[in-house]
Amino acid sequence: MAEDLVRPARYTADSLLEVAVDVFTVRGYDGTSMGDLARAAGMSKSSIYHHVSGKEHLLRLALERALDPLFAVLDEPAAQTGPAIDRLEHVVRREVQVLVDNLPYVTLLLRVRGNTATERWALDRRRAFDAQVTELASVAAGEGALRSDIDPALVTRLLFGMINSITEWYRPGTTEGNGSDSGTDVGDAAVALAFDGLRT
Amino acid sequence: MAEDLVRPARYTADSLLEVAVDVFTVRGYDGTSMGDLARAAGMSKSSIYHHVSGKEHLLRLALERALDPLFAVLDEPAAQTGPAIDRLEHVVRREVQVLVDNLPYVTLLLRVRGNTATERWALDRRRAFDAQVTELASVAAGEGALRSDIDPALVTRLLFGMINSITEWYRPGTTEGNGSDSGTDVGDAAVALAFDGLRT
Repeated sequence: MAEDLVRPARYTADSLLEVAVDVFTVRGYDGTSMGDLARAAGMSKSSIYHHVSGKEHLLRLALERALDPLFAVLDEPAAQTGPAIDRLEHVVRREVQVLVDNLPYVTLLLRVRGNTATERWALDRRRAFDAQVTELASVAAGEGALRSDIDPALVTRLLFGMINSITEWYRPGTTEGNGSDSGTDVGDAAVALAFDGLRT
Repeated sequence: MAEDLVRPARYTADSLLEVAVDVFTVRGYDGTSMGDLARAAGMSKSSIYHHVSGKEHLLRLALERALDPLFAVLDEPAAQTGPAIDRLEHVVRREVQVLVDNLPYVTLLLRVRGNTATERWALDRRRAFDAQVTELASVAAGEGALRSDIDPALVTRLLFGMINSITEWYRPGTTEGNGSDSGTDVGDAAVALAFDGLRT
């Protein structure tokens, strides 16, 4: 395919995905029809089928936009080498940034409940992610650097409960809801609270 | 009304509320009709109207079952006297317990979005609750006992983001999802993480 044809097609596919993630989040995936997507995107259904095989394909593409960068953090050098407590801290700080940078996609990911193959795939990926973080917490506890009185799986649940809840109020570029906090400020605050505690 | 008439009526109203909170949570408040509630409760619509004025009344009663005990914690003696950091710690530990003890009602409260007067009332109550906790965090920071590098409103968001996320996985009386953790264990873990930090 010639370069001048690829670009517009990609542009349209990206716009379609942006529209789809919003519609899925507001109406729910089950409650969204191809007609709803076509109306929201200002495209005919047949134009949509030119880009994707159907709404489950769109869901898969949208969820990959959350899961791929979330998993990529676990492969960053600072998540791979050094004391496990520092690797875990790096993961927490960076995952907040990924969440803020991909807010609509992560928000959708967190609402997925598992009625279709794609939703079950996303839930499996989330479980695999949690298992990797739990393993890191477990190693940090084994190294004596992370408190050992909380089960590592519970550490992961509480940490990511806190991180994921940021999707409920963080709105970039507004003063409504998040004051003047940038994603970096929020990530630093989450790390400070979770690793060093609120108590002075 | 004679005592022997009051008791069965109250029993029915309680059962109805238990059914309603589940139906509202699964289908969403907007998506639930009085017919859905009647079918789920095994009652006629007219029997339901004997107890409540309609589905918004049921929503109000259900939300009060979350909000009343959540607010009651703020009036407990240990939340009223002593250093603010200790009062805040008491509030966090007890709110986890309230959440676990009233799981279906708190879960519903957290899903309310604000399309009706009752939903807007619940959101206002949540904001008032957050403001009280933020004030407590602010006083604790002023007393030099809580780290001053995180805005008190952000402290509240992160703390209650973590606490509220417990509704997503905590299931009492099962080993699925929460291992052998009781509500007390989870509350202690949340307090330890948030106040003293994960790092040893």
